[in-house]
Amino acid sequence: MTRTQITAEPGMPLVTVTRDFDAPPELVFRAYVEPELVVQWLGPRDLTMKVECWEVRDGGRWRYAHTDVQGETYWFHGVFHGTPSPAAIVQTFEFEGAPGHVCLETTTLEQLGDRTLVRTVSAFSSVEDRDAMIGSGMEVGVRDSDERLAELLSRLQAG
Amino acid sequence: MTRTQITAEPGMPLVTVTRDFDAPPELVFRAYVEPELVVQWLGPRDLTMKVECWEVRDGGRWRYAHTDVQGETYWFHGVFHGTPSPAAIVQTFEFEGAPGHVCLETTTLEQLGDRTLVRTVSAFSSVEDRDAMIGSGMEVGVRDSDERLAELLSRLQAG
Repeated sequence: MTRTQITAEPGMPLVTVTRDFDAPPELVFRAYVEPELVVQWLGPRDLTMKVECWEVRDGGRWRYAHTDVQGETYWFHGVFHGTPSPAAIVQTFEFEGAPGHVCLETTTLEQLGDRTLVRTVSAFSSVEDRDAMIGSGMEVGVRDSDERLAELLSRLQAG
Repeated sequence: MTRTQITAEPGMPLVTVTRDFDAPPELVFRAYVEPELVVQWLGPRDLTMKVECWEVRDGGRWRYAHTDVQGETYWFHGVFHGTPSPAAIVQTFEFEGAPGHVCLETTTLEQLGDRTLVRTVSAFSSVEDRDAMIGSGMEVGVRDSDERLAELLSRLQAG
């Protein structure tokens, strides 16, 4: 079972998400960097994800689309800062529906016995940008994603 | 004359720097993206700058060193998010002497008559990171840089 905590202090341009998974960091890391695994968990459950590029290297670009049941498509893109590793995946993030509102996401994977604690800090350039992200339904997306990731990790370990 | 304002609200992981220059946005933009110009103004006056790479494109990497009069060298690197333009230069920034403390810098150039207002917002993943940047002597670096950039722009317009 994953336990997701979302912290968004009022008046601060930060969001911190922590959750832990019943899987080793190496496997969780694979789920973050292999696009054929990413599409199986990232985003709300009722959206379909398509990856245009996912270049896991310093300066590598990523871009993906989420499509809802009405056929509406939402694009996102960013770049990786530094070579992604379980110690840190650092990337920029921009929703193309709100261009110019970029945030910086730092994800760390920490081994806790046979579990992995995943912590993502999103840093925004203003409190308004942070609040807009929260208002966009971020929480549903995060909770769905975490449940789906837990299910994927379970399938990978069973398989 | 450049007038630099540095805003760093207590307890917030942001720094905002605004200054204006007696030059059009196109020329100020060149000073930001052409490495042979960047080395003439970026950083404190008593340091020498060497650019290792400066790839001005979406996902492009940049890395440079500042060397002081004692021969001590300080490296910095980051990546560009999106294609840099006068509307916005978005990039990550990391001092290699403090690895893992990455910030996101967004610089916009706005035409004000025959002047350009330059605004840079630096977003950090924690207040501690922001305060460490301020404590590292950021203000001297910013003020020296802005004076040197004003001088460079003046030379470019005279020449």
